[in-house]
Amino acid sequence: MTEATILSTSLKKPSRIVENRELEERLGLRAGVIERLTGIRTRHYLGQGESLQGIATTACLEAIQRSNLDPARLDMMIFYTDVPPTLPEDGRLKKTYYEVGPHIQYLLRSQGVEVGCECVNIGGSCVGFISALQIACGLIKSGIKHNVLIVGAADCSSFLGGAEVNVAMTFADGAAATIVTASRRRGFTDFCCMTDCSGYDAGCFREYTEMYVDRKRVAEFAPRAFQSAYRLLLERTHLDQERIDLVIPHQAGLKIIERGVALSGIPREKVYVCLQADGNTGAPALQIALTHALEEGRIHEGDVVALIGFGTGWHFGATAFHHHEIRD
Amino acid sequence: MTEATILSTSLKKPSRIVENRELEERLGLRAGVIERLTGIRTRHYLGQGESLQGIATTACLEAIQRSNLDPARLDMMIFYTDVPPTLPEDGRLKKTYYEVGPHIQYLLRSQGVEVGCECVNIGGSCVGFISALQIACGLIKSGIKHNVLIVGAADCSSFLGGAEVNVAMTFADGAAATIVTASRRRGFTDFCCMTDCSGYDAGCFREYTEMYVDRKRVAEFAPRAFQSAYRLLLERTHLDQERIDLVIPHQAGLKIIERGVALSGIPREKVYVCLQADGNTGAPALQIALTHALEEGRIHEGDVVALIGFGTGWHFGATAFHHHEIRD
Repeated sequence: MTEATILSTSLKKPSRIVENRELEERLGLRAGVIERLTGIRTRHYLGQGESLQGIATTACLEAIQRSNLDPARLDMMIFYTDVPPTLPEDGRLKKTYYEVGPHIQYLLRSQGVEVGCECVNIGGSCVGFISALQIACGLIKSGIKHNVLIVGAADCSSFLGGAEVNVAMTFADGAAATIVTASRRRGFTDFCCMTDCSGYDAGCFREYTEMYVDRKRVAEFAPRAFQSAYRLLLERTHLDQERIDLVIPHQAGLKIIERGVALSGIPREKVYVCLQADGNTGAPALQIALTHALEEGRIHEGDVVALIGFGTGWHFGATAFHHHEIRD
Repeated sequence: MTEATILSTSLKKPSRIVENRELEERLGLRAGVIERLTGIRTRHYLGQGESLQGIATTACLEAIQRSNLDPARLDMMIFYTDVPPTLPEDGRLKKTYYEVGPHIQYLLRSQGVEVGCECVNIGGSCVGFISALQIACGLIKSGIKHNVLIVGAADCSSFLGGAEVNVAMTFADGAAATIVTASRRRGFTDFCCMTDCSGYDAGCFREYTEMYVDRKRVAEFAPRAFQSAYRLLLERTHLDQERIDLVIPHQAGLKIIERGVALSGIPREKVYVCLQADGNTGAPALQIALTHALEEGRIHEGDVVALIGFGTGWHFGATAFHHHEIRD
């Protein structure tokens, strides 16, 4: 059977860098408290003239360029996010519910890149990248598709106005794009994803404008979800823990990750964390972390990399892939 | 390779029946104008105490019962809709952006049906059922999944308050559920779906509360989209037009369907239309129409059925399936 593997990746951080000091002043917190509670030192917010659509488009452009693929050969684009869509107009975000994916294709076209393939929009929580990868792999392995562009983006900062302190100190903005392609060499192994619906009301956007997260329930659920997803992955793929070279979890918060790692018995040096400089960018955080790890040279030829996602719903999911550089 | 086929279907119409007369009075239209313009005679709106989540849950319950499948054997649920989510609370709809899919699983659990599988939420236009079927078929044919529950629902009536007359007279509410399963017998053929992003702004929900459709552009695009999707399907599947026993299009409006049928050269008696009694229920309209056609005995053992979807984005897509009754 055809295999599915990563062809190229890219990420785009928006321009406005927000240090803890600025947030601590605004939220009336003592200096140092944000880093102590979350591990986050700095994060990126959309700057003047930037939008979710714009940063997503930039990430797509670069992933397409790096792939050396004719964009006409892309046969599906999957866009996912956790935030309600807003439409940028005259420098303001208008409350307009619509499909962002075709808008990104429109912005790509205006930059001379024609992506005429079908576009699917996934709305959901921080397991979105795993869901999108699974869909891409299913369609590629069954021969229905050959090249799938996955783009995740979120502008959480647009929804923090009235949010509680714990949410306002954690969330940030970002986008990443990944092209998954058909390959003869082994790429993605199996997927294991589950939804435990008792968390359906643990996170939402009140009035569509204010991000809400039930911090207490998330803090309890997330490390166990990490553990469950990782255990299911090992069972399902028959991979030995020793065979896995790098574990990249959703960048929810340092304490959540540390607890999940401890529960799972993973050596700390095998776990990739980048939230110190990024914050929790919501749905695309895992895809952004994977792209960072690749760009930093943390993933080598032949490595086995595990991706762990979890989020309100409750959702948890994991996959692993064998990394091979694809060259023309 | 494993094939993918329909195991069971169900639909749920909400309780409030709205005749043209009532709408014509409210909208200040002359008697008979709605049927003349749209072909619609009556439609269903959510009644007192009903919700999108509720009708979707009812459709799922019945599809699961009819399948004779242990719900624990479902390994994915795909929920899709075109409307922004609202959360029913104390008989009112609260503006809350959240993932509806896990909430439907929660409501199923409260009725004793435990669906613990992963849940994916697709937001988008009237091609959603084709997208969901394609994802289900990819995952089943590649062996990643065996049984996928697809549920589509929309409560368009909740967004018609300030809408233009042409929108208010056309849209309605409904839900449908379909279980797709692995099979040795031929089921779904290929899929062809495309997105032409020039329609990204042709439909939306302004302020997240008011449905907007650019009627003129849709009237121009939709019949051509119908034709393109049907032509691509014939090319891709190598099916002769004579081999197709029934064509079920998205129930956008009678004139759109008639023009699409004429452009495609399909004999009128092979085209299934049910919008007279249902209106345009938005994203789930195609899935509802398929379920109606099955329940009315319009689809027989061995028939080849084509499904044609199109919507703002612009999206268009089609698939065909060989119908076989699955019995225990």
